[in-house]
Amino acid sequence: MSSHSRIDIQEPTFGAGIWHFGRYVDRYATDGYGPPVSTLEAIDLAGQVGDLSVVDLTFPFDPPELGLDEVKAALERNGLRAIAVTPEIYTRRFVRGAFTNPDAEVRRQAVELVSRGAETARELGCDYVKLWPGQDGWDYPFQADHSELWRFSLDAVRELATAFPDLRFAIEYKPREPRNSMVFSSAAKTLLAIEEIGLPNVGILLDFGHSLYGGESPADAARLAISRGRLFAIDVNDNHRGWDDDMVVGSVHLTETFEFFYALRDAGWDGVWQLDQFPFRENSVEAARAGIRVMRNIHRALDLVDREALAAAQKAQDALAAQRIVQQALLSSLVER
Amino acid sequence: MSSHSRIDIQEPTFGAGIWHFGRYVDRYATDGYGPPVSTLEAIDLAGQVGDLSVVDLTFPFDPPELGLDEVKAALERNGLRAIAVTPEIYTRRFVRGAFTNPDAEVRRQAVELVSRGAETARELGCDYVKLWPGQDGWDYPFQADHSELWRFSLDAVRELATAFPDLRFAIEYKPREPRNSMVFSSAAKTLLAIEEIGLPNVGILLDFGHSLYGGESPADAARLAISRGRLFAIDVNDNHRGWDDDMVVGSVHLTETFEFFYALRDAGWDGVWQLDQFPFRENSVEAARAGIRVMRNIHRALDLVDREALAAAQKAQDALAAQRIVQQALLSSLVER
Amino acid sequence: MSSHSRIDIQEPTFGAGIWHFGRYVDRYATDGYGPPVSTLEAIDLAGQVGDLSVVDLTFPFDPPELGLDEVKAALERNGLRAIAVTPEIYTRRFVRGAFTNPDAEVRRQAVELVSRGAETARELGCDYVKLWPGQDGWDYPFQADHSELWRFSLDAVRELATAFPDLRFAIEYKPREPRNSMVFSSAAKTLLAIEEIGLPNVGILLDFGHSLYGGESPADAARLAISRGRLFAIDVNDNHRGWDDDMVVGSVHLTETFEFFYALRDAGWDGVWQLDQFPFRENSVEAARAGIRVMRNIHRALDLVDREALAAAQKAQDALAAQRIVQQALLSSLVER
Amino acid sequence: MSSHSRIDIQEPTFGAGIWHFGRYVDRYATDGYGPPVSTLEAIDLAGQVGDLSVVDLTFPFDPPELGLDEVKAALERNGLRAIAVTPEIYTRRFVRGAFTNPDAEVRRQAVELVSRGAETARELGCDYVKLWPGQDGWDYPFQADHSELWRFSLDAVRELATAFPDLRFAIEYKPREPRNSMVFSSAAKTLLAIEEIGLPNVGILLDFGHSLYGGESPADAARLAISRGRLFAIDVNDNHRGWDDDMVVGSVHLTETFEFFYALRDAGWDGVWQLDQFPFRENSVEAARAGIRVMRNIHRALDLVDREALAAAQKAQDALAAQRIVQQALLSSLVER
Repeated sequence: MSSHSRIDIQEPTFGAGIWHFGRYVDRYATDGYGPPVSTLEAIDLAGQVGDLSVVDLTFPFDPPELGLDEVKAALERNGLRAIAVTPEIYTRRFVRGAFTNPDAEVRRQAVELVSRGAETARELGCDYVKLWPGQDGWDYPFQADHSELWRFSLDAVRELATAFPDLRFAIEYKPREPRNSMVFSSAAKTLLAIEEIGLPNVGILLDFGHSLYGGESPADAARLAISRGRLFAIDVNDNHRGWDDDMVVGSVHLTETFEFFYALRDAGWDGVWQLDQFPFRENSVEAARAGIRVMRNIHRALDLVDREALAAAQKAQDALAAQRIVQQALLSSLVER
Repeated sequence: MSSHSRIDIQEPTFGAGIWHFGRYVDRYATDGYGPPVSTLEAIDLAGQVGDLSVVDLTFPFDPPELGLDEVKAALERNGLRAIAVTPEIYTRRFVRGAFTNPDAEVRRQAVELVSRGAETARELGCDYVKLWPGQDGWDYPFQADHSELWRFSLDAVRELATAFPDLRFAIEYKPREPRNSMVFSSAAKTLLAIEEIGLPNVGILLDFGHSLYGGESPADAARLAISRGRLFAIDVNDNHRGWDDDMVVGSVHLTETFEFFYALRDAGWDGVWQLDQFPFRENSVEAARAGIRVMRNIHRALDLVDREALAAAQKAQDALAAQRIVQQALLSSLVER
Repeated sequence: MSSHSRIDIQEPTFGAGIWHFGRYVDRYATDGYGPPVSTLEAIDLAGQVGDLSVVDLTFPFDPPELGLDEVKAALERNGLRAIAVTPEIYTRRFVRGAFTNPDAEVRRQAVELVSRGAETARELGCDYVKLWPGQDGWDYPFQADHSELWRFSLDAVRELATAFPDLRFAIEYKPREPRNSMVFSSAAKTLLAIEEIGLPNVGILLDFGHSLYGGESPADAARLAISRGRLFAIDVNDNHRGWDDDMVVGSVHLTETFEFFYALRDAGWDGVWQLDQFPFRENSVEAARAGIRVMRNIHRALDLVDREALAAAQKAQDALAAQRIVQQALLSSLVER
Repeated sequence: MSSHSRIDIQEPTFGAGIWHFGRYVDRYATDGYGPPVSTLEAIDLAGQVGDLSVVDLTFPFDPPELGLDEVKAALERNGLRAIAVTPEIYTRRFVRGAFTNPDAEVRRQAVELVSRGAETARELGCDYVKLWPGQDGWDYPFQADHSELWRFSLDAVRELATAFPDLRFAIEYKPREPRNSMVFSSAAKTLLAIEEIGLPNVGILLDFGHSLYGGESPADAARLAISRGRLFAIDVNDNHRGWDDDMVVGSVHLTETFEFFYALRDAGWDGVWQLDQFPFRENSVEAARAGIRVMRNIHRALDLVDREALAAAQKAQDALAAQRIVQQALLSSLVER
């Protein structure tokens, strides 16, 4: 289209959490939604997608004795780079808490596991270490002293960020699951924690679905984090707003997904566009392609927005005008495929 | 208390789903919240609780080759009876649907598995076969023809109920999980299905938590099912209203739990008071005892309600008066322990 | 577009609740979101939209002494027809209940008000009388005897439908608001009531937003009601799924709105496409136009769906394939504007 | 009880928002849930409760020409003190925003109205001026530039707090309503704003129901605000977790209400225990008494908690043990009445 040829569209870098290609289990299908998938197999599946450039690797690898060289080789043969390492501080050892476990010895193990993950991230040349303390929180009223959980959480992150000053640590917040309530539950609460920690190498990984289902506007949350220099990474997916369904990008909230990416572009943020989908019952390679197809369309649409008109509409807080402008851009872009 | 000595309190029968004592897994702690627990071990744990009389057994047993005689012996030595069998139509084979699977062969397998479970239930002298078609539904808009899913679901239940006219089948409804949307999602929708099926031996298992988190008043849902002769069984637990947290009974919604049991008593329903808790991070025997302690208190409180005063308050729809009466009874009862 | 010229697109009839053009009040802006709007003024505003053919009129008119002839004249000069009358059984007199009020005298007044509304509907040649018993339900646990509320509700509707056998009565269900819990809370529960009433002239008005926010799939709910011959009317709008926000059609859930209309078309339902938006802070005429613009696009898209491919995808319950087909049609259609 | 006679129970100060005794209106009962209530009448109703010591007064008074002396006299004759003034920056003039209105002139009017309210608060000797910017936010995706709304909000609060250094300003946050999304939506986000403002006289009013329904643990939110010296005031009520129902205290979440007050006591916070109930369909004086009865019981229960045992349970994060301890205290206390 001529309107496109005038615009130099530099595609974003697409990425995915490696678990996207793994094996899902839940409390009902305890034998899994499919057969086991090793780290190397998952990397090969990621490679099959064809549009992915980076992956976020869970650590330890599966099997744990898998060597780093083999992982590097698998990444290379698939044209992939490890953008991050996600230490698994949410498995059986840590179900009563990782950084906030009542047992000091387990808290120590959590920090050690993340440290080993950080060393691996360093060797892989990653951009950041992801912290996902999903077991840190509480289930019942009166179960815990919230101040102590807060302190435990901040102490652990501070210790890690101090020990690895050359690495960046991105905290992925979420309202709940697996814990009924997580300590790092929202963008604002995590930013409060980060500012209290006071180190430059701690930031946020904003998962679109976590933000949406936590009642935030992901676009608003992104701007807040960026304004404080703390948006280290993003994950995208979709849900029905009541749970972290990790559905394919844009399958429910296309407009809000577009608003999210518009806010990122507008604020000059240009990190990786990363998938965190859980295609329980779909082919994982196809599901990744579907997500990338939508993201690619959204990316193209960003150039088609009449930015001046939108700025005027937003200045006037005119919802009807803004929607019309946005639908025009979004849908023009999408139909070209 | 004198007010008690005048009343002949016949304790209800307490029961539990055997999975209460099993091993939990979710998509994060894929190695489980604890070590594996076999059917016999779970029965022994149920026996340790001390107040349980009946259990609902998942089928096939674990391991699958476990003989019925061994199960019977384990039940007997623990003073337990099998009130129901729950065929596992939600494991890997059925993740894309049991009764509604797009593949006719898998639908057939689902009916067969339930049939084998029904035979086992017959041999165990159970009160009902529980149908929990948690994988029957859809995840995405436009994914399925809802009319076809409805038809598949009703056909399967009708076939089963016809094949086993001497047994009762209790459908456990739930808004969602593991599917994003379940076919049997509410009391009313399940009653519509049951009346369409038109057989006397199909009813509802009303799970308090499913009802609450689906936006129903469990007391209202119970009355509706009872008025049509279809309340075959109940499960109790609690949650934070946004998800099926399967917490300990009364830990969050004590008043609404009391209202639920009050409605059952008032309508003359006298089935088993059954636990469906998932104590992921607690000792399962202790969690069962905690749930029974609360249920026992509630049971005692039922006799302490000033029924005439409450009837008058409800006649006037006077919320403040009703609450005062109820709190008085509930709390008087609880404090005696 | 050539693909369009081959298809004879017969536009649907567009309608709106007259309150769309009225004055909004809530518990904060108690002085209203704008100045008062009389019935005649509202009809004139509806006329300004330009694409509306029918309106649903609240009754009594405002002011109450306004004559029917004046209303008829206003409708006529704006090219509008009254499709329905909605008796206001939710104002001060009825805040403790209309059909379920604890005071028999007020219950009588509710039936009388609806009866007068029905007579007006008859004189206006309406298609149906809408019943919206938003104050019928309860707020607190233990406040009411749910069985009595159910009986009161059914008795009133049965009495009305019997008294006006030539008119149709459409019950608009909703989970809650203004009551914390409504008696007619879901499609399934309302269908149970309707079948219990057992008269042919009682059906459902399915409000898309009520259904969505109540956890239903509106498409599924519509099919269920149609399969029993009880879908008398629909209202459309949108929301954030946590409340009945009555936002502009398609502003959040475009795909699900499309799925809803697809289900209606597929089942051969061809009633009015009716707006129930509450543009608190927008120009009401512009908001109606925005809603109609989206509905018109959706209508066009219905013809663009590759129905065979979609049927195959749904047969296989293939979410990824279904989404791709649907996005293609929906977005092709939308971009033409 | 002897256990009580040993404890010197100093009752807390009970308060209420004056709107508790006002007239409710919503979008359905536009003629109100009762007749109009003037400021003086509302003060007299508050006086009738018998246990209230302070009230939070909305400003301007009703009628606006009502003199301050008359208000003072009414307070005095009812034994009441004005703890706060709440300027009404959410009525018709401000429905498109107060501090964030797109029109600079309206933003100016909002600041001026609060300023006049602040002067009145000063003359009344209030503890704080409450800021409740419920119209400040957005309804639709893409409607506003979130960064600008944030800046507008902070600028206004900073200007006010600077202009009245002798007064304290308490921001009441809430996820939504009347706006679909509010700028000050959570405790953490409001704390971020307050720390960015950087003045000592800006803090939080934590409404229990807003916190609960926003997905927070109110006890956790309170501790966070107290730890930063920013918890200026609290409001209590209850809800069904999906909306700000403003029900009677303890009617649904008794345990969590107790946990909230326990956290306050534990952190040494000793402000007013203030009601923010909306008894739409109840007698407002009786509803206030019901709320105070529950609060008084909770207050007594605080002394009955086995604090050492609870501390040990929380140290171990033992939910079952904590619940048992808490139920024991809570219920022992309640039954004495």
